[in-house]
Amino acid sequence: MSSEFITPRAEDYSRWYTDVVQRADLADYAPVRGCMIIKPYGYALWENIQQALDKRFKATGHQNAYFPLFIPESFLNKEKEHVEGFSPELAIVTIGGGEELQERLVVRPTSETIIGYSMAKWIQSYRDLPLLLNQWANVVRWEMRTRLFLRTMEFLWQEGHTAHATHDDAEAEVLRILDIYHDVYLNEAAIPGIKGRKSEQEKFAGALRSYSIEAMMGDKRALQACTSHNLGQNFARAFEIQYTDENNVLQYVWTTSWGLSTRMIGAVIMVHGDDQGLRLPPRLAPIQVVIVPIGKNDEERAPVMAVAESLLAELQAHGVRTKLDTRFELSPGFKYNDWEMRGVPVRVEIGPRDVQNGTIAVARRDVPGKAGKQSVPREGALTFIKQLLEDVQRSLLQQATAFRDANIHEVEGDYGKFCEILKDGWAYTWFCGSAACEAKIKEENQVSSRNFPLEQVRGRGKCIACDEECTERALFAKAY
Amino acid sequence: MSSEFITPRAEDYSRWYTDVVQRADLADYAPVRGCMIIKPYGYALWENIQQALDKRFKATGHQNAYFPLFIPESFLNKEKEHVEGFSPELAIVTIGGGEELQERLVVRPTSETIIGYSMAKWIQSYRDLPLLLNQWANVVRWEMRTRLFLRTMEFLWQEGHTAHATHDDAEAEVLRILDIYHDVYLNEAAIPGIKGRKSEQEKFAGALRSYSIEAMMGDKRALQACTSHNLGQNFARAFEIQYTDENNVLQYVWTTSWGLSTRMIGAVIMVHGDDQGLRLPPRLAPIQVVIVPIGKNDEERAPVMAVAESLLAELQAHGVRTKLDTRFELSPGFKYNDWEMRGVPVRVEIGPRDVQNGTIAVARRDVPGKAGKQSVPREGALTFIKQLLEDVQRSLLQQATAFRDANIHEVEGDYGKFCEILKDGWAYTWFCGSAACEAKIKEENQVSSRNFPLEQVRGRGKCIACDEECTERALFAKAY
Repeated sequence: MSSEFITPRAEDYSRWYTDVVQRADLADYAPVRGCMIIKPYGYALWENIQQALDKRFKATGHQNAYFPLFIPESFLNKEKEHVEGFSPELAIVTIGGGEELQERLVVRPTSETIIGYSMAKWIQSYRDLPLLLNQWANVVRWEMRTRLFLRTMEFLWQEGHTAHATHDDAEAEVLRILDIYHDVYLNEAAIPGIKGRKSEQEKFAGALRSYSIEAMMGDKRALQACTSHNLGQNFARAFEIQYTDENNVLQYVWTTSWGLSTRMIGAVIMVHGDDQGLRLPPRLAPIQVVIVPIGKNDEERAPVMAVAESLLAELQAHGVRTKLDTRFELSPGFKYNDWEMRGVPVRVEIGPRDVQNGTIAVARRDVPGKAGKQSVPREGALTFIKQLLEDVQRSLLQQATAFRDANIHEVEGDYGKFCEILKDGWAYTWFCGSAACEAKIKEENQVSSRNFPLEQVRGRGKCIACDEECTERALFAKAY
Repeated sequence: MSSEFITPRAEDYSRWYTDVVQRADLADYAPVRGCMIIKPYGYALWENIQQALDKRFKATGHQNAYFPLFIPESFLNKEKEHVEGFSPELAIVTIGGGEELQERLVVRPTSETIIGYSMAKWIQSYRDLPLLLNQWANVVRWEMRTRLFLRTMEFLWQEGHTAHATHDDAEAEVLRILDIYHDVYLNEAAIPGIKGRKSEQEKFAGALRSYSIEAMMGDKRALQACTSHNLGQNFARAFEIQYTDENNVLQYVWTTSWGLSTRMIGAVIMVHGDDQGLRLPPRLAPIQVVIVPIGKNDEERAPVMAVAESLLAELQAHGVRTKLDTRFELSPGFKYNDWEMRGVPVRVEIGPRDVQNGTIAVARRDVPGKAGKQSVPREGALTFIKQLLEDVQRSLLQQATAFRDANIHEVEGDYGKFCEILKDGWAYTWFCGSAACEAKIKEENQVSSRNFPLEQVRGRGKCIACDEECTERALFAKAY
């Protein structure tokens, strides 16, 4: 399982991706087309993502709940745009307990409808607002072209669903969540995403307004990293979610929904991975430090193992997720490759000479070869390693940020140049947001508008496609 | 939502149960028959159960993974007993992406088959064993008679799946897990379950041997609290899960599976609940302490709130899950009832006189009325409350154990007395385990054998039904 089995990125990025996912034991294809088996190493990564999100959701007053997997087909029909958006992608249960069902059941593609139904029962007065719910769940969307983590028929995610008294409360919630997502991407995954508003054409089916974080992958394609939607009163009207306000007047609530899925694992792979395999940001890495003891025979191994085990205990006692690799039947070189391929941020090697010298050798995954390796005293190793993990975290973010910034190109008023940029990068340009311009750009460049970044210098410019005056710039890129 | 809306247990236990689940905001019925919505308070209880289990699984070397929701129908047919057991309960997807599927997909009722398929790919040599997997997931079984938490069409659970080199390794795993389950029931949920082996008739479809924990509910019915199965080589043969042993000989592995579900919440409700509502064991309670500040007006409330907030901060800083109830628009009496109904183990009341005296009033949920309430100095309240939470935990376990022991009756050689006992309690008696005796007892008493307790004095006796000599005693009871 060494890196020689990984296709180089330059040769075939798509094969490189699949090789890494499979060789690093993150996931595998399932016997059902388009479905995925998340293996323990991949699932541990997901658990760390879950924890990072869950504690932030709870700290901002959200509560977890669980709603049914099956949704009556009639529910989806209640919101017109929603059903149009999702009906081509549905998996439908028609038989239960050996009998044909009277009403067919949809396997949830998302839960706005069933949660809207519940909110209508639970919300009576303004005192019940805001209602801030989140659910960790599996969802199913019948996708034709699937890729592990990035687009699978079934995937795991969290979906937040909230109800508010006013449009502004809902909008504030949607942006608060976008900030939480951005924080997790930036500070846990070392991925500098760009927050922005989706165009009318690209927004969620049934939303008033959708926001996303767009992240640049290693092949310069964009990945929609997560979304946060202001649903307006669309679902409130469809499901009669009403409350009596402080003046005893009946009002429709304003709802939001927002989700982040196992797709994030795909982003981590593609932003940080290199030709040796994964490079995991320390804060999310299931294994932050691997210790490889080296010794030719039992006599050499005994003192080495004593040092290795004491270091393991010390690191674990201080919350460093550490693994001791005692597979002496494998060569050290094989094991180094193996752990590099799995993206473990820091590797410690301990051999007989290290024991004599009271040292250990420490290698950082983000700096290849000898440059990333140094001998340090066993005393003080804990402090050194903890510092090094922070350095690796920072360094991955710096690299990703530099790569992103080098490949986003601002362009104004020159459609030819715009098209040229889109062959190998992102374009940032004035855009009127119309369906016609969106369609023209998409057709001529095989790209889509990613979002209108929230942080941009306001002004006036001319739409890159139609030359009409407009007030915002958007990002365009080929996307996953 | 005060306790006046809860049907007394003596009047109608079943209605009492449903009242408590709904009034305490644990769960609600879903629009799809037999499905359940787990509300935030109920889900928080489940999260505490999950954590208690998950850390024990990980400490014993298990890894979480995730397998697909959909299983090809042909997979289930590979293990004869398994498919016979589950086929009447299946929900089946026949339409995907608008088209009729060539092979129908079963929504997983349990995952032995799909995990068996994966194990066959992952296991090559004895070095790959044991393979210790667990999955947190939803499963679907088409049940006709459903009850919130106890039996729902969809439920949440964990399902462990492991593969071993030998029968004895598999058997040791099955019993290790049974001990973990028992520990969680006993020490987290304050429920004294009884570990035992299921009869041949009651074992899992496809298992060599099944074990369960049986717990006595407040109406003296038994609840199968969880199960742990030695699957022998049945699934290994069905899915060709083989390994080469140390002598390079190809062998079938031995597999196990084990599960604990949201049903455990039903057990907590029925073991500890009383006519005032829930009584939650402190270790699992989402809210361990509620603080109710009392004051007629802002002048009275200001100093009361200062004390309440300082106590809240102190308790939270020491890891006590505490809630401050500032709903001054509601009467104190209403709030006391409300929190009693929700089963919060300890309630703190703080009024103006308490502030003057430097005291707080502390009421324990498990001792009703004045007897359970006392005034204690604000200084030292943390220590007092932490101790009190432990006392409540212990007291709930003692009550449950005393109730259980008072209602299990040993009987020998007197079938009439056996039948009499079963009208209102559990019978513990010699049992040959044959299908004929099991059927006779079931038909004549509407009970089933629960299990052969693992901890029993071995010996020889005569089967209560057929009078043949046998070597084990079993528990019989009406069951959920």
